[in-house]
Amino acid sequence: MANELPAMTLKAIGIVRNEVKERPPFRRDWWVEIVSEVVIDSSLTEALDGLEEFSHIIVLYWMHRLASDEVPLKVCPKGRKELPPVGLFASRAPHRPNRIGKATVKLLRRQGNILRVKGLDALDGTPVIDIKPYIPGYDSVADTRVPQWITNR
Amino acid sequence: MANELPAMTLKAIGIVRNEVKERPPFRRDWWVEIVSEVVIDSSLTEALDGLEEFSHIIVLYWMHRLASDEVPLKVCPKGRKELPPVGLFASRAPHRPNRIGKATVKLLRRQGNILRVKGLDALDGTPVIDIKPYIPGYDSVADTRVPQWITNR
Repeated sequence: MANELPAMTLKAIGIVRNEVKERPPFRRDWWVEIVSEVVIDSSLTEALDGLEEFSHIIVLYWMHRLASDEVPLKVCPKGRKELPPVGLFASRAPHRPNRIGKATVKLLRRQGNILRVKGLDALDGTPVIDIKPYIPGYDSVADTRVPQWITNR
Repeated sequence: MANELPAMTLKAIGIVRNEVKERPPFRRDWWVEIVSEVVIDSSLTEALDGLEEFSHIIVLYWMHRLASDEVPLKVCPKGRKELPPVGLFASRAPHRPNRIGKATVKLLRRQGNILRVKGLDALDGTPVIDIKPYIPGYDSVADTRVPQWITNR
């Protein structure tokens, strides 16, 4: 299948700066209160104009610090070994074929090429590959169903 | 900035199959009723186990059919020339430095390595790069602010 498809190479458009130097030992929602600066390449500053009118943005980033290249087909949800394994794509585990993380974060302030955001679950130094405005209704769903392991805390 | 950062190359994990052979002439929400099959590489079938317990999934895909490599810094929202231009990253325009599309779609059925979904705004043949379960609260926000051009229809 891969042979039919175009080469796809990403360019970093920016980088995450925050105080999270290492992935915290497993703790749920460790990122909720984290404030980060997303520093966008200054050649792209103008492309951020108008983003400050959105309360929330979507950050796509590259999980560059994973130790292993291994892609497991099954993972334990939330890293909890007592939970039955599920398929990798039924989880948000970072060890994916393409290490793209997606976070919806609160945009606290935009100043030139720097976005100050709250709730980004990315480590310091993480390459940023896209910024999109969060659009309710397009990015959100009113009625959803999720498995029990998602809601069990 | 790019020099500090790792090379990031994507592998297609699957492909979109639907009846949308060309981007429809501009029409809002053309994708809402579109049913597509996301055909995942059969080596990854097991990684989809458990996905069927989610009503909605997030599809990341590569917008491979854009005619031009040009990345504009400003775009007219929704392709409507009468609206004042906004920064590229304040829009969902496809001509991004990294051509990654993100759609939240309804999972109608999973059958082996084939995901039948509704509401995917991608053309037939589009490479798929990630599948993530949609998790309310992580992927959605209750209170948001968006500019007027988003809600003006």
